[in-house]
Amino acid sequence: MPVFVDTLRDIVGSAHCLTADADMAPFLTDWRGRYTGRARAVVMPADTAEVAAVMRACAAAGCPVVPQGGNTGLCGGATPLDDGAAIVINLSRLRRIRHVDAANNAITVEAGVPLALVQAAAEEADRLFPLSLASEGSCEVGGVISTNAGGVQVLRYGNTRELVLGLEVVLPSGEIWHGLRALRKDNTGYDLKQLFIGAEGTLGIVTAATLKLFARPRCAVTAWLAVLDPAAAVGLLARLRGVAGDRVTAFELISRPSLELVLQHIPGARDPLDRACPWYVLTELTDTQAGSNLATLLDAELEQAIADGAVLDGTVAATGAQASALWSLRENISEAQKREGVSIKHDISVPVSAIPEFLDRASLALQACHPGIRIVAFGHLGDGNLHYNLSRPSRDENATFIARTEEVGRIVHDLVHALNGSISAEHGIGQLKRELMPRYKASLELELMRGIKALFDPQMLMNPGKVL
Amino acid sequence: MPVFVDTLRDIVGSAHCLTADADMAPFLTDWRGRYTGRARAVVMPADTAEVAAVMRACAAAGCPVVPQGGNTGLCGGATPLDDGAAIVINLSRLRRIRHVDAANNAITVEAGVPLALVQAAAEEADRLFPLSLASEGSCEVGGVISTNAGGVQVLRYGNTRELVLGLEVVLPSGEIWHGLRALRKDNTGYDLKQLFIGAEGTLGIVTAATLKLFARPRCAVTAWLAVLDPAAAVGLLARLRGVAGDRVTAFELISRPSLELVLQHIPGARDPLDRACPWYVLTELTDTQAGSNLATLLDAELEQAIADGAVLDGTVAATGAQASALWSLRENISEAQKREGVSIKHDISVPVSAIPEFLDRASLALQACHPGIRIVAFGHLGDGNLHYNLSRPSRDENATFIARTEEVGRIVHDLVHALNGSISAEHGIGQLKRELMPRYKASLELELMRGIKALFDPQMLMNPGKVL
Repeated sequence: MPVFVDTLRDIVGSAHCLTADADMAPFLTDWRGRYTGRARAVVMPADTAEVAAVMRACAAAGCPVVPQGGNTGLCGGATPLDDGAAIVINLSRLRRIRHVDAANNAITVEAGVPLALVQAAAEEADRLFPLSLASEGSCEVGGVISTNAGGVQVLRYGNTRELVLGLEVVLPSGEIWHGLRALRKDNTGYDLKQLFIGAEGTLGIVTAATLKLFARPRCAVTAWLAVLDPAAAVGLLARLRGVAGDRVTAFELISRPSLELVLQHIPGARDPLDRACPWYVLTELTDTQAGSNLATLLDAELEQAIADGAVLDGTVAATGAQASALWSLRENISEAQKREGVSIKHDISVPVSAIPEFLDRASLALQACHPGIRIVAFGHLGDGNLHYNLSRPSRDENATFIARTEEVGRIVHDLVHALNGSISAEHGIGQLKRELMPRYKASLELELMRGIKALFDPQMLMNPGKVL
Repeated sequence: MPVFVDTLRDIVGSAHCLTADADMAPFLTDWRGRYTGRARAVVMPADTAEVAAVMRACAAAGCPVVPQGGNTGLCGGATPLDDGAAIVINLSRLRRIRHVDAANNAITVEAGVPLALVQAAAEEADRLFPLSLASEGSCEVGGVISTNAGGVQVLRYGNTRELVLGLEVVLPSGEIWHGLRALRKDNTGYDLKQLFIGAEGTLGIVTAATLKLFARPRCAVTAWLAVLDPAAAVGLLARLRGVAGDRVTAFELISRPSLELVLQHIPGARDPLDRACPWYVLTELTDTQAGSNLATLLDAELEQAIADGAVLDGTVAATGAQASALWSLRENISEAQKREGVSIKHDISVPVSAIPEFLDRASLALQACHPGIRIVAFGHLGDGNLHYNLSRPSRDENATFIARTEEVGRIVHDLVHALNGSISAEHGIGQLKRELMPRYKASLELELMRGIKALFDPQMLMNPGKVL
């Protein structure tokens, strides 16, 4: 349909309408390299009006659309299917920071602004935009909203959903919904923006957002603590929050095998403690008050916790460099695991109180079927969210093991489901987990979701083959 | 249709199916006495299964339904229309606290539990449920969720929407949606619960909710501060948050005329300061750490603010009794105004940064049309939410003035709209503001809302004549 592509070219300019295979290639494969699709064109509009015009053209032609931001998603949600029927609308050129309103603690940015630039703009206004992810240098606002991204500070500041005040969205019809409100309170009917957050581009295209800002932390203290088991970690979280409240900004759980992988594969990594312990907590407390007593507060509580056995051992970073070294142990787990070889990954959540039971039961069930399995469990304990990754120590055995991904996943996900948890805590559904939905969602809920999909996107143009 | 009412009686028992006028009367008039409706019956089911059975019977008979909680709403949202076609389903007997999970900072309660009992249950678990409203003794969980209630701590903890982790809802078909999740992270499709929050019972009946809990504050400091104008108040908010961050739990603006009404009508009320000032801020800082330096922190900042003229005068409560006295000045404004006579009330919000402009321009516009008008402006400045109430000093003039409510409201609401604000910040739409919706909502947005309504409630049974 060359006429159709000409229409798109007329809207965005030929430099921004890619059709050659080599030009399109980077936009047709996902970040992990797990999915590769095809597309009629990759279109890069300059602003909301161009997005709307492209969308109108697609609606008229019945052409499916895959919205795409920084293309850093982990579930194939921004990769087109391989039928080649769709176009990709990449939002990266919508890169304006439209408005910073420090007195209202709000910032309005376009969909293509990388997360790190939002953080920087907030900092320039002496504010904090707290969302923080591994991919923050390249992921973009539209993507983090469409996947309701999480990260390491959800415990304190919430997921992306809780950081969104308003949205501007191009609907599948090509109409623009102007919902860029900057209000803390607005009770005038259904809160439509909530539907687009986390919808992975299946209901419309987020083109801009008004986001919440916060007071900037002026001091931080970071500690690496050894505990006997996950139950002790859960107890420690409640204990720290009891005194420090929401100063507890991060609370990460790390199993000994996770740390060992880092020590083995990442140059310069060293065990912060003298003796090996089965589980660790990496916690960070922050405060907006420069002269706060954070360190004293933490020291006092830890002294007590060590005295009564709740904490086995621990170290509090004395300098920023020490704190970074502790954090890099946590942040390098995925990289270390990659160097070790392929593994079966899960991104699950359960109520925080159910984390110990999940870990116990999952381990028992998996060891029973796969003796010698290596469990690399770590993640955002404070959010009930674990990255629960599985492999076999020897490469040969591992290849056989990986072939049984589906069967292994079922053991993990069935248990998560039994504990009222989620099979996708922060990464979304995309293509990766779409087929799991009927097993773990009530049919009533899926039916309502399909109804919403049909209401917003009656032609079924938006991001086909994703989520539902 | 006596057969139909018999069916209802069979489900809930005759003691809980009221049909006599005298028995039904308390459920047919709203709290402010502004709306009175009629109903075929007032039905009080005991549990979710009974709610579902009643709803199924209504769906089969095509009988409209008005869900009702503590009946404390301010917009007539829980009062049936006067056509007498509907039944009222009052949820007050769904009064179980199902589960308190302190380690997960979550509580699961049924719709009929009064807000104050949720607060008490949280406290018993050494946690805080932060939602706090004037009606907390009688309003119920289902109602606060259905109206997305706000209150005095939104600044710190958010509206009801931000406090809800999961919902159980009886749909208009009588099916039960089991969405009682207790997860901080769950990215598996559209977040359906968001649609029921703030829907004022037009999409289904909330029968239970899982709500977030927080660490309990162990100390608080309360201050009454005089400032020159609203711009100074907005500046002071940013300044306090800059050092104290989210310790700033409440930040209320009070105009001198608002205080004067209280001093005049409320026995025992006294001006906390020696001289009259045009505007006041009532602020409260709280901390989870018992031995925190809150008072020192506030004192130091205020000393500085007074020195550079940002604050004119002020007093920090030295005792709990003094703090209560300051709070009662704020909380008695509505009561004092009631004693003064009828007034035209508005519950509006704008971005916090636009509050000074709103107050200036609204005052100019209103004084131009209605010289001598008395403006009683106060509210949750930190949320951009003002209660903006208008009257004339003499009773005779006031009667004439009240007759022009619609015209006066239009001046206020048009300005709010021009400043990208909301005509209903925290009270909702109900019957009161339903007819204003087409003026202030884009038709595209109303159309999507109507689509959602038709999707969830194709028979249009749920709370007719409300919101849309």
